[in-house]
Amino acid sequence: MTTDFTATRAAFDLPEGMIYLDGNSLGPMPKSAAARVAQTITAEWGKMLITGWNKAGWMEQPAKVGNRVARLVGAEPGSVVMGDTLSIKVYQALASALEMNPKRRVILSDTGNFPSDLYMAQGLVRTLGPDYSLKTVAPEDVLAAIDDSVAVVMITEVDYRTGRRHDMAALTARAHDVGALAIWDLAHSAGALPVHLAAEGADFAVGCTYKYLNSGPGGPAFIYVAPRHADRVRPALSGWLGHEAPFAFEPGYRPGAGIERMRVGTPPVLQLAALEAALDIWDQVDMADLRAASLALTDQFIAGVEAACPTLTLATPRDHDRRGSQVSFRHPEGYAIMQALIARGVIGDFRAPDILRFGFTPLFIGAPEVSRAIEVLAEVMQGTLWDRPEYRTRARVT
Amino acid sequence: MTTDFTATRAAFDLPEGMIYLDGNSLGPMPKSAAARVAQTITAEWGKMLITGWNKAGWMEQPAKVGNRVARLVGAEPGSVVMGDTLSIKVYQALASALEMNPKRRVILSDTGNFPSDLYMAQGLVRTLGPDYSLKTVAPEDVLAAIDDSVAVVMITEVDYRTGRRHDMAALTARAHDVGALAIWDLAHSAGALPVHLAAEGADFAVGCTYKYLNSGPGGPAFIYVAPRHADRVRPALSGWLGHEAPFAFEPGYRPGAGIERMRVGTPPVLQLAALEAALDIWDQVDMADLRAASLALTDQFIAGVEAACPTLTLATPRDHDRRGSQVSFRHPEGYAIMQALIARGVIGDFRAPDILRFGFTPLFIGAPEVSRAIEVLAEVMQGTLWDRPEYRTRARVT
Repeated sequence: MTTDFTATRAAFDLPEGMIYLDGNSLGPMPKSAAARVAQTITAEWGKMLITGWNKAGWMEQPAKVGNRVARLVGAEPGSVVMGDTLSIKVYQALASALEMNPKRRVILSDTGNFPSDLYMAQGLVRTLGPDYSLKTVAPEDVLAAIDDSVAVVMITEVDYRTGRRHDMAALTARAHDVGALAIWDLAHSAGALPVHLAAEGADFAVGCTYKYLNSGPGGPAFIYVAPRHADRVRPALSGWLGHEAPFAFEPGYRPGAGIERMRVGTPPVLQLAALEAALDIWDQVDMADLRAASLALTDQFIAGVEAACPTLTLATPRDHDRRGSQVSFRHPEGYAIMQALIARGVIGDFRAPDILRFGFTPLFIGAPEVSRAIEVLAEVMQGTLWDRPEYRTRARVT
Repeated sequence: MTTDFTATRAAFDLPEGMIYLDGNSLGPMPKSAAARVAQTITAEWGKMLITGWNKAGWMEQPAKVGNRVARLVGAEPGSVVMGDTLSIKVYQALASALEMNPKRRVILSDTGNFPSDLYMAQGLVRTLGPDYSLKTVAPEDVLAAIDDSVAVVMITEVDYRTGRRHDMAALTARAHDVGALAIWDLAHSAGALPVHLAAEGADFAVGCTYKYLNSGPGGPAFIYVAPRHADRVRPALSGWLGHEAPFAFEPGYRPGAGIERMRVGTPPVLQLAALEAALDIWDQVDMADLRAASLALTDQFIAGVEAACPTLTLATPRDHDRRGSQVSFRHPEGYAIMQALIARGVIGDFRAPDILRFGFTPLFIGAPEVSRAIEVLAEVMQGTLWDRPEYRTRARVT
């Protein structure tokens, strides 16, 4: 298929005059989202009540929606299921991977990983006991640090601050060479670039849907388990909807078939309906087209900003293969600069201590918006417009 | 306040002619739910995008909504927070309680507990290692089984099958006497009857909102931590939104203040909006009024069914103090009988092997519906109308 970005753009509702470069934090609203969720509420919950679990297919929704996400991340059909939050899915994947590699006790990650992934690992390590540990190294040192002490390598493919992209194929192969497993967090990959979980041999993957996938605030997470492992994983979060027969109400847990066992509790039906509205758009997108468009936008932004704003330092790798779909610049006054930009309708975000982040999502951003964003950023920097008290006051940053 | 049940009833949309006695499984839709969620989608997500986390108050929503739930379960302000599913909250409470009682290794529960609570305990026990165990006894034997080997007693107050109610005050006091902690699952209590978490000394409590609280399919769960413990609990599921400073993106986890540390990942903003619509109704309800009305309805149903249907055996205790807001009868052909009832517009549900469950929620059920439900059940039983192939075919039961 050839992606029609004019059509995808028409499917989103964005405030007039806003240039939204923060889809890597919270994606914008598909025009169909409110009606889709209202339909689920009134025609399904309202009319079917309890029978909606079967009649409206709520019970199958996590696997059915998971299959639509699977295509976007290069996963086999039946290998992805939706539910919970990304932090919970990180815990599930880690606990399962450690149990599959019982002679080893080290989780390896990097200091560029999203803090919640590290926090969840810290909590799990404490629960497992003093033999276990989380080891973090600098992002560029991960490959060399994968040795035969490592049980599982847990890496976020694209760095949330810099947009630096890890080499999934190489790190996964190295992990397997030394007898370790690889967990990939796709928070900044799913919907941002082509991902090849199956082809590159990932053991587990997790991700969220409220960023590039545009499922809205609190959208459900997903988990991938490689089919070669799915029937031998023993879930630590062994909830009833991951049971082989949830409605038999047996006293003992028996894991369900394959990926179904990674379900825990009742699925978030309303959030899933909003995600389905977004996936109606994604179903029309070819990931190679998306990547080509994304690279054109990020190249244009890097070149334009570097030409117009010499005091900003690029934090994102220039090499196409080493970056995601965001561009970050560093500046000691990054916070105030971002506030000044936002006041002028260019929405990016700030990450401490000095990172200005801009996400580029071809589904609703084109070259004209990138040009305009560069102009506004140049105005802000040239005039030191950012150097005003109202931009320096720190409200809580999200 | 005096509760106006005519007003609460007018706030729900129920299909014409349906007598819905399954609000203990999935509560019905408040009339305002669809508009409330659509407003969150279009006016907040659509217009505010990323700034909704602050401007629309999404970030504070779990604690703010938690305070409205707190009133319904007799919890102190600031002691309840929303998020995740009930199974996840069970795991959190159990892991925390075990860590607070480090010299003991036994979780005590009962065979009447909801299976997912037992499954989550089994998963945690496996993660903690062979020293730990889950012990279950018959519901009537719990009190006697609480001895000084027990680290934590985990009990669902109202049995999901029989409606039998445990004595929270007595079991909690006994647990404390022997140095154990008490976790209460309020799945069939919250919104069903007055609960007095603070007054009865519960250490932890968890619950869901999609049953009696009417938040809709996949509505978020809640967790309560007694204020005396809240600042010393160490969360096992240590996610970034439970961190003292989530947006500082520090490498190490530091628990947030009090109940905030029980948050894990991004809150389910759309599901929370639906819950808020339901809580607008609950804010008008006095729990003592609710209990009086509920007991009148359940008494009426028990007396009517026992008079009209001699082959049905009451499974629910007659004693007011020992039951929740549901009535269950046993019959070997329970499944087919329930299908015949449902075909006639009286909606209850079936739980294997032989339980017919009926939930009574005065918010939208009154004496005329109970009379009619008794009549229909009597017709089905007297005519053996249930004994038809179409009622005996077992689809998946939810």
